[in-house]
Amino acid sequence: MMTKVTDYLENNKQRQLSELMELLKIPSVSTDPNHKDDLKEAANYIIEQLKALGFKTELRPTKGHPIVLAEYFVNQKLPTVLIYGHYDVQPVGPISEWDNPPFEPRIIDEKIYARGASDDKGQIFAHIKAVEALIKTTNTLPLNIKFLIEGEEEIGSPNLGPFLEQEKLKLACDLVIISDSAMIAPNTPTITYGLKGLAYIELEVIAANRDLHSGAYGGGVPNPINELAKIIAQLHDKNGKITVPGFYDDVIEISATEKAAFKKVPFDEKEFAEEIALKGTPGEHGYTVLERIWARPTLDVNGIKGGFQGKGAKTVIAAKASAKISCRLVSNQDPKDITKKLIKYIEDIAPNYVTVIARDLHGAKTALSPLDSKAVKLTAKALEKSFDKEVVFARTGGSIPIVNNFQEELGVDVVLVGFGLENDGAHSLNEKFDLKNYYDAIKASTEILNELNNF
Amino acid sequence: MMTKVTDYLENNKQRQLSELMELLKIPSVSTDPNHKDDLKEAANYIIEQLKALGFKTELRPTKGHPIVLAEYFVNQKLPTVLIYGHYDVQPVGPISEWDNPPFEPRIIDEKIYARGASDDKGQIFAHIKAVEALIKTTNTLPLNIKFLIEGEEEIGSPNLGPFLEQEKLKLACDLVIISDSAMIAPNTPTITYGLKGLAYIELEVIAANRDLHSGAYGGGVPNPINELAKIIAQLHDKNGKITVPGFYDDVIEISATEKAAFKKVPFDEKEFAEEIALKGTPGEHGYTVLERIWARPTLDVNGIKGGFQGKGAKTVIAAKASAKISCRLVSNQDPKDITKKLIKYIEDIAPNYVTVIARDLHGAKTALSPLDSKAVKLTAKALEKSFDKEVVFARTGGSIPIVNNFQEELGVDVVLVGFGLENDGAHSLNEKFDLKNYYDAIKASTEILNELNNF
Repeated sequence: MMTKVTDYLENNKQRQLSELMELLKIPSVSTDPNHKDDLKEAANYIIEQLKALGFKTELRPTKGHPIVLAEYFVNQKLPTVLIYGHYDVQPVGPISEWDNPPFEPRIIDEKIYARGASDDKGQIFAHIKAVEALIKTTNTLPLNIKFLIEGEEEIGSPNLGPFLEQEKLKLACDLVIISDSAMIAPNTPTITYGLKGLAYIELEVIAANRDLHSGAYGGGVPNPINELAKIIAQLHDKNGKITVPGFYDDVIEISATEKAAFKKVPFDEKEFAEEIALKGTPGEHGYTVLERIWARPTLDVNGIKGGFQGKGAKTVIAAKASAKISCRLVSNQDPKDITKKLIKYIEDIAPNYVTVIARDLHGAKTALSPLDSKAVKLTAKALEKSFDKEVVFARTGGSIPIVNNFQEELGVDVVLVGFGLENDGAHSLNEKFDLKNYYDAIKASTEILNELNNF
Repeated sequence: MMTKVTDYLENNKQRQLSELMELLKIPSVSTDPNHKDDLKEAANYIIEQLKALGFKTELRPTKGHPIVLAEYFVNQKLPTVLIYGHYDVQPVGPISEWDNPPFEPRIIDEKIYARGASDDKGQIFAHIKAVEALIKTTNTLPLNIKFLIEGEEEIGSPNLGPFLEQEKLKLACDLVIISDSAMIAPNTPTITYGLKGLAYIELEVIAANRDLHSGAYGGGVPNPINELAKIIAQLHDKNGKITVPGFYDDVIEISATEKAAFKKVPFDEKEFAEEIALKGTPGEHGYTVLERIWARPTLDVNGIKGGFQGKGAKTVIAAKASAKISCRLVSNQDPKDITKKLIKYIEDIAPNYVTVIARDLHGAKTALSPLDSKAVKLTAKALEKSFDKEVVFARTGGSIPIVNNFQEELGVDVVLVGFGLENDGAHSLNEKFDLKNYYDAIKASTEILNELNNF
């Protein structure tokens, strides 16, 4: 049977790529209200794809962007897998800095370049194309499949939680598969078992009711940019520890077993630094780079702005300045609790001659998958077969807010199997997805779906 | 004779205002290369005005924006005044935050709102309209007048220095009058005798060769925004002193006499704070607000940017971040020396795991006018006559780079007589010029020009 599938995939490579490119052309940036219609278009494109394969599809409206639901029911004796993904993409940043327009996908050097290529359109589409191959070659599927593809992952999935709670029965399944992560190295099948949580705030420092001439006012007024800088500088100590009181209260130390396992992971600090042209890899003292990224909480400023940002010199003292600050969380750290502590600390250290406004932008809980679950074991077996290589079990510093909800609401295990690479530029410029990884993902997905027949 | 002038001004108020509004419509933003033609248009508008009054005019090209030169020669026995001003304006900042488009001048509540209304189009135009009144009512002028109106003041007058040096003979005069400053309080004739210098740099902190996903990289890489914030936070100590080694070497302490004089200036710290809604007036310890603004060196970040600045949350770690930083200088501080010291200090404190690039954007020397000069005395006398009020002798934290060049190249005294107000929003949003101040400036200029006949 698998030969037929392999042949089918080989014969349909070009079309399966073209169809992904059509999806990548749609600028479905969920954070930007101007793209509302594009989100709908992307959702409908996926609906049409699944409908054509015989899926029962629904486009479910939410307060934000709609959710794609699709089901292929074979029979009640078979297990049911729910495949989750998202059709929304990150904002593109300064468009002029892309080598190629982000929504005009182009293939260069066996890689497809476009916003969303890897995160997550390419990865979710690979599952759809795998399902296509199975249906076209066998006229059925080895198990019941549900697709749940949302349009708000990049803005923290605000409407998916309530939706899961409300549609528990409709979404009932034996396990959830998510491909929205990366392989630890090229051609290395990877199951991610630990996700960080996230606490993301926006901070505004206001000093005056208008911008001021630095000649007329300089020396007599607080400068909100200098004050914001002072606040940010106080968020870490000299050892790279986060200074927010109580920040580490719910952090569990990395176990000796896990530390040992991390050492076996094909991760090289030097290569890591070289690939992105770093001059050093500073961070929390006492931990390796991989430990810090995977299993220690972090705090980063994601954006800052204030005053004159144009060319040349303008002698202005800004009325206000602002920053976006986020913490990646681990263990039992709760995003709401950390957000509260972070905001309180900032308010405490801010001088009383400025006004500080802090807003909670979004949060995500941490998540871990048990490595000995049937779901993980079967998926790993299929991956090893497909890649003919041992699976690496990895953690990540990333967050997929909804993983936690799946575990809690549906009471099932979630398996994260990623086909992207860390250097795909997922939240950066020139995002890409290696064609090999796209085709490998399709192939591996067919293996996984077959293997899950044994669930 | 002055009755005729007064009548003329009264009868021509509306037209003299409309003509200023035409000039204010031209978006002559010198820092932005896209406005090159607008600069030329503004220069030509002024040329036409002066030509119509019988001035011999020239539009002198420079490497940047052209210089307007105009001369009205009466006879050799009369003294010659050179009136300097600039037709270029500051950038407007976020246009959406203006109550009214910056280049569509509108009169609200007896104030004219437009970019450049006060700085400096309104003030230089007042002199032109004063000259018009004198010529139209007397068919001549009480002295020889030269106008020198440049288009690069807001970018540090890069081409005016060489021009002055080269055209010493053509620009020969007995004194220079500049109206590009403010009155210390409404309806208070003010001569500014001390200007601060300026050292302005741009700073870029680079950590990686591209933006990174904070989930995949956070904890393992330097964050250029956090690092930039740390650098900025180290530029002042807890007492508000600037920490750059050698920064205060050439600063002369404010004398007891000057401190006493400052105390008599109609400046109220509480009113100052209230007018711009400050919650406090922090700064260098041991000095009053006025002392700090007028006579102590300062350091302010004028702009900062890095990472995601759009709406919502983006979990990115920026590749780089940048800031514009300037120091206002006093006494014998030299802009080149301070720039060098500032850049060296920043390079010293920056961690070695980021790349720091610092660029010298521009500088201006400090300047002082002797209070007992004939030029200052005659101008003060005319002002007191025109306003029927004692003149206040003020300093300012602002810089007019070219004042120093006038003193050095032409060997004459420079008198700064300002008609704007500090709250005109010169380098900020919603710039305005009170109509009363415009008309008072025209009136006062006719008095000054008459009085200078006695030079």
